[in-house]
Parts: sequence; structure tokens; C-alpha cells
Amino acid sequence: MQYQFSDKMVAVKPSAIREILKMSTDPNLISFAAGNPAPDAFPSKEVAEITAKVLAEDPVSVLQYSITEGYPPLRQAMKQMMREHYHVGNDQDELLIVSGAEQACDLFSKVILNEGDVVLAEDPSFVGALNSFRSYGAKLVGIPMEEDGLNLAELEKALQTYEKIKFIYLIPNFQNPTGITMSWAKRKAVYELAVKYNILILEDNPYGDLRIKGENVPAIKTLDKTGHVVYMGSFSKVIAPGLRVGYTVAPQEISQKMAIAKQVADVHTTILAQYICERYVAVYDLLAHIEDLKKIYKRKTELMLGEMDKHFNPKVAYTRPEGGLFIYCTLPGGVDSIPFCQEALKRGVAVVPGIAFAVDEDSVSSGFRLNFSTPSDENIVKGIEILGKLTYEWVK
Amino acid sequence: MQYQFSDKMVAVKPSAIREILKMSTDPNLISFAAGNPAPDAFPSKEVAEITAKVLAEDPVSVLQYSITEGYPPLRQAMKQMMREHYHVGNDQDELLIVSGAEQACDLFSKVILNEGDVVLAEDPSFVGALNSFRSYGAKLVGIPMEEDGLNLAELEKALQTYEKIKFIYLIPNFQNPTGITMSWAKRKAVYELAVKYNILILEDNPYGDLRIKGENVPAIKTLDKTGHVVYMGSFSKVIAPGLRVGYTVAPQEISQKMAIAKQVADVHTTILAQYICERYVAVYDLLAHIEDLKKIYKRKTELMLGEMDKHFNPKVAYTRPEGGLFIYCTLPGGVDSIPFCQEALKRGVAVVPGIAFAVDEDSVSSGFRLNFSTPSDENIVKGIEILGKLTYEWVK
Repeated sequence: MQYQFSDKMVAVKPSAIREILKMSTDPNLISFAAGNPAPDAFPSKEVAEITAKVLAEDPVSVLQYSITEGYPPLRQAMKQMMREHYHVGNDQDELLIVSGAEQACDLFSKVILNEGDVVLAEDPSFVGALNSFRSYGAKLVGIPMEEDGLNLAELEKALQTYEKIKFIYLIPNFQNPTGITMSWAKRKAVYELAVKYNILILEDNPYGDLRIKGENVPAIKTLDKTGHVVYMGSFSKVIAPGLRVGYTVAPQEISQKMAIAKQVADVHTTILAQYICERYVAVYDLLAHIEDLKKIYKRKTELMLGEMDKHFNPKVAYTRPEGGLFIYCTLPGGVDSIPFCQEALKRGVAVVPGIAFAVDEDSVSSGFRLNFSTPSDENIVKGIEILGKLTYEWVK
Repeated sequence: MQYQFSDKMVAVKPSAIREILKMSTDPNLISFAAGNPAPDAFPSKEVAEITAKVLAEDPVSVLQYSITEGYPPLRQAMKQMMREHYHVGNDQDELLIVSGAEQACDLFSKVILNEGDVVLAEDPSFVGALNSFRSYGAKLVGIPMEEDGLNLAELEKALQTYEKIKFIYLIPNFQNPTGITMSWAKRKAVYELAVKYNILILEDNPYGDLRIKGENVPAIKTLDKTGHVVYMGSFSKVIAPGLRVGYTVAPQEISQKMAIAKQVADVHTTILAQYICERYVAVYDLLAHIEDLKKIYKRKTELMLGEMDKHFNPKVAYTRPEGGLFIYCTLPGGVDSIPFCQEALKRGVAVVPGIAFAVDEDSVSSGFRLNFSTPSDENIVKGIEILGKLTYEWVK
């Protein structure tokens, strides 16, 4: 049979990164290509205690069908923590539990986007989110990045140029892939532009807790008195990504529409996973665990940056992130980074070419992304030395 | 802010059943409204053993990110079981793990349907699936049910009448809500019509294992030499629904497209839940567990049917299912069943009016659905007596 697929899915290619990761099964490969949290950071002992207790005492509550909006005690705990600790959410908002923040992108896109609608995004940006917008037939427009976040003049120009703009997608903290943090001034300016042009902001904050230096910058959502901001959070980086639990804080009407979309997406998120997150927050002190995580990430970031300072050709620029999981490098002269990344792979080091994160997939990118959270310290030292040599051979 | 939602989501109302269930929190209410498996059927001891073992021995493997297509040992085990035990799937097919069968409906709809495309469905049918088709802007056309499955003449008439038909959605075993099983002759005829008119079949089989009497009828997918059938299965009724693990067996090209859609839907299904299913199949003998389940369901079905035979007004017709979770009743004279269901709720018994499952939501239904798997034996006896009295008052 000749299959006829939907128009909207034709534009979506498999994630280049996930394809690279699938290919790189060679155990000797040093991978800086993943976006995985450090495995030594998983609270596996506590997860084991929690699951043992609930399966002994009340197994039916975690094995039976449950409510689409989320396990009620988890919703309540996160609503309270988001309000009190992060000042995110008010009486006009609702908190919805989702199957990882990726599902938040999917549900939000589904309820908001008609085919042909426009989405603005930092360029480069997280490919999983960009692909979810593409999968609903959106036209993406990229806004170039600067050291303190996206270029405001370019943002306003786009807002004036394009019709049918529905929202701006932003990762204000330790952006993926650039590692850049948006300044407080820019956050306020972006929020004001959203209100002025009456479009929504989708604020994605998976890494916000993983700050290793500098001053905390509040979320754009903390400014939201007008219902223009949908905030996305996740347990993937602070407890464990395999659980697939995230959440959104969104204006009631949007949240309820997303819940209807979730009913037909997966009925509800795996209850055992939600229960683990809820008990972890209630019994084991998530905020204390985050302090431990920061120590691991600080050591790994500094190790990788230190090795890069030693071994990299100074003509290759790179960001110095204040948190998150990624360092972004740029080859000089606007050259395409794909051949560089291919040569690195041949020498046993996997990195992700910047084109994987480009808003315009037909453009050329000189960038490549390094992840420091997944590899061992030993592999960081070995891998950066190999890449460093390559930067001298490649860039004369 | 005034929100503008996508056109496709306007047609989707919240599931009437889930709304009824949310309202009916009165602990004295006898609910025949759910579609939940019997809680005493959950293998909670085994689930506890499995999670304790993996979290002690190899926690990272269940807590880290994983592959979109599914935990490889589970994919392999299910592929083998589906082929050897059920004769479902061949070398042209692939098995994909999904977050419950509801996600299979969602992903399949997303990759196949453009807005305005037509989906044919048994009428009445499972509202979760119908809503997922509606949420991609599909136009639904209902095919009336007969005692041995959908009306073939009406099916062929629809195939000749409508343009842009993409697929037929079918639940051949113990259909939800009717409890009806499609005969082998009709399965063959439907497959031949799909090939003749070159449209796909989406075959949903969540209850197939729960046969309590009569001869097994093979899946339509067992006939599929031409790549016209996408088969959906689930662990919800045979292990536990809270885990949210299901699977599809579909032609390679469709399966790969669905995997791309899954990448942007939730990255992958919760690994701990997949691991539980895999170990349960490998270590604890799923097929033996199913034999135990059947005993529970057989007793409950016979108990409810027996009480109905005693207490129901003989003018109210009802199906006698050979398995599954549901009995479907029909009030005589084509009257609307909603006032009957409202009166039942007032008397402390929740049932679902047939309109909740209607393909045309603006039609009138005389039906109502009873579930026997969730209530206790005692509540079945009490609740059917109350309903029985009401049938005599209501139908003169």
C-alpha cells in the first residue's frame, strides 16, 4: 500500500541528535552529544524507598486509572512550591501535570496552532520544541541570540512583519543549545512586547534550578498579570528524566484546553512516576537535593571549560554558561560545522552540529554543542584534548 | 487576554464519562460508569519485586532518558509474543511502545489525518478514540452495529459515499461500549473492503485477552498481507492501567512516522513502567496471569448478568458479552436514555448514557453502558436491584 501522510508531519524530520545517539553505540565513543543529566545525580535510593512503601501499603492508588490533570497531591505540592519559592503562578493560573515538558510543547501547540500560524523562537533553540511546533504545521521564524538573550530589535521587527504570530518560545535560563541566560531587562522587555502585540509567551525552564554561579533571574512568568505567559517546568533534570514528569503553569482557560488535549493524548501521566515526584518533594526535600546537584554540575562545567581553555584554538569562540547542561562553540569565518563534527566523530568524540538546532533547517551553522553532564570526568579530559587538537588542525 | 484556540480543538469536548467520574466522588455511590479493570487483579506483589530489584541493581537504566521506540527488551518480547501467540505482525511490520493505547490513536491520527479527512467508526464506539480523531479535525461517520459486528452493507455504502476516507476504527473484541464481538466472517469482509477501497484499518484490541466464553476469533491484523492494518494493544487491562504502557504493530513506514510523532509527543514512555511490563512478561508469565484474570471477570460478568436477568424489566434489551468489561443496555421505543441515567444517579447508581459514545454527538441514544469489573460483588447485587426497579418504573 502507498501511504498518504498528513501534510503537517511532512515537515518533521527525526531529531538529528537522537539519530546521532542511536548510531553512537560504540562503547569507546566519548559522547558530548547527549542532553542527559548526570547519572550519579539520580536519587535512586530514595526512589526505591518510595516505590517499596507505596506498593506495600496502597498499590491500587498507583496502578489504577487516575485523573488527567495529574495526581492531586503532586499538583497541590507543585502549585504551592511554584508560588512560594519561585513566585510563578497566581489565582488566574492552573498547574497541569504533563508527561515531561516535551508533552507541554505538544499540548500547547495543539490547542493554539492552526496550520500556517507563525511561532517565533530564539535561534538556535531546542530541537524537540521546534519539531513539536513544526508537527502542527507552524511556520517558524528565528530571532538571533546575543550574549544576554535574543535580539530585541529583531524580535520587534518580526512582530511587525509577520501575520498570524501565535507565540514566542523562549528558554530564558542556560538556553539549549547556547547556554545563554536572558537578562532581567530583556525578560521585562519581551513580556511588554508580548502584551503590546497580544501574543503568548511559552517559557521553557528545564534547567533553571541548575545555576552554578551569578545571580538568580526570576522567570518571565513572575511578571505575568495579563495571562500572556505559559510556563513549563520539569522533574527531568532535578529528579530523573526516565520518569517523564513535567508541569505547566498557565492561564486557566489554556490549561483546561490543554487538559482536554491530554485526555486524548495519553489519558494521564504514569501514576507511579507522579507519586515518586510527589513523595520526593514532600518527604526528601527537593530543594536540598538541588543544592547537591549544583555541586556536581559546577565541578563538571568548570572541568570542561578549564580543559577547553587549555586545549582549544583561541579562534574558536565558546559560551561560559552560569548553569544548565551545555557549552556552545562557534567556528570562525562562518564555515559549516558539519564536516568538523564528522571528523570529531571519526576520532571518537560525538558533538552535535549547530544545524540540528537551527530554526531554518536549510541554513548553515558554524556552531556545535557540548554537553558536560553525561560524560565522566576522565572522558571530559580525554575528549576535550582530542577536540582541541582538531580545532588547531581545522582552523588555521 | 482573549485566547484564540486552534480550529481543530473546538470540536473536542471533555470526555463525558471522565466528567461523570469526577463528579461522582460520593463514597456511597455505586459506580457502573468506569472502565477500570478490577483492582484485585493487579499483580502488585510482582510489581513491587520488579521495581525493588531494578532500583537496587541498575537504577540508571530506568531513570535516564531512553529510546523513543521503546525499551528494547520489551519491544523484542512483545514482538515475539504477538507473532508466536497471536499471529499478529510480519516482516513488513514494526512494534512501537506507546504511553497507553490512547497515545496510539493520537499518534496514528496525527501522522495520517488532515483537517476535513473522514474516519469511519462503529457506532457507538470508544469516546477516547473518537475524541482523538476529532482533535485532528476529522469528520466522523458512524457505521451501525449488529449482533456480530458492524453492518457491512452500511460500511460499503459509506466507502462509496464519502471522499477523503483515511481509515476505519474498529474494536473487534468485546467492543466498548456494546460488548459485541465481530465474527470471523465479518473481519475477513472488512479487511477485503479496506483493500478494495485502499483505506487503512485501525484495530484496537484492549480487551481481547479477557475472553470468558466462546471461541477465540483471530485479529484482523492476522489477515494483513498488504499493510492495511495498524494493530493496537495495551497492558492496561492485563497488568495495570496506571502504568500507561501500550503498543502498536504497524507497517514499517507508518510505525516510523508514528515514532517521529512520539519524539515530539513525550520523547519516550516512562522507562520504569516499561521495565515492569518487560520483567512481568519475562519472569512472571503474563499468559498464566491472564488465565487468573479471566476467572475474576467470568464471575463478575455472570453475577451482573444473573442479577439483571432477575431484576430488569424484560423490555430493556442488553448484550451478553463473551468477554471484556461492559454490558450495553437499550431502552425500548427509541427514547433518550439521559433522563433515565440522571434518575439512576439520584438513586445512587452511576451508569454512562449511550450518547457519550455516539459518533454523532447531536443524535439521541437509548443506550446505557454498565461496567462490571470495577464494582465489588456486593455493589453489583445492590446496584442492579436499584436499576432493575427503575427499569420497571421507567418502561411501562
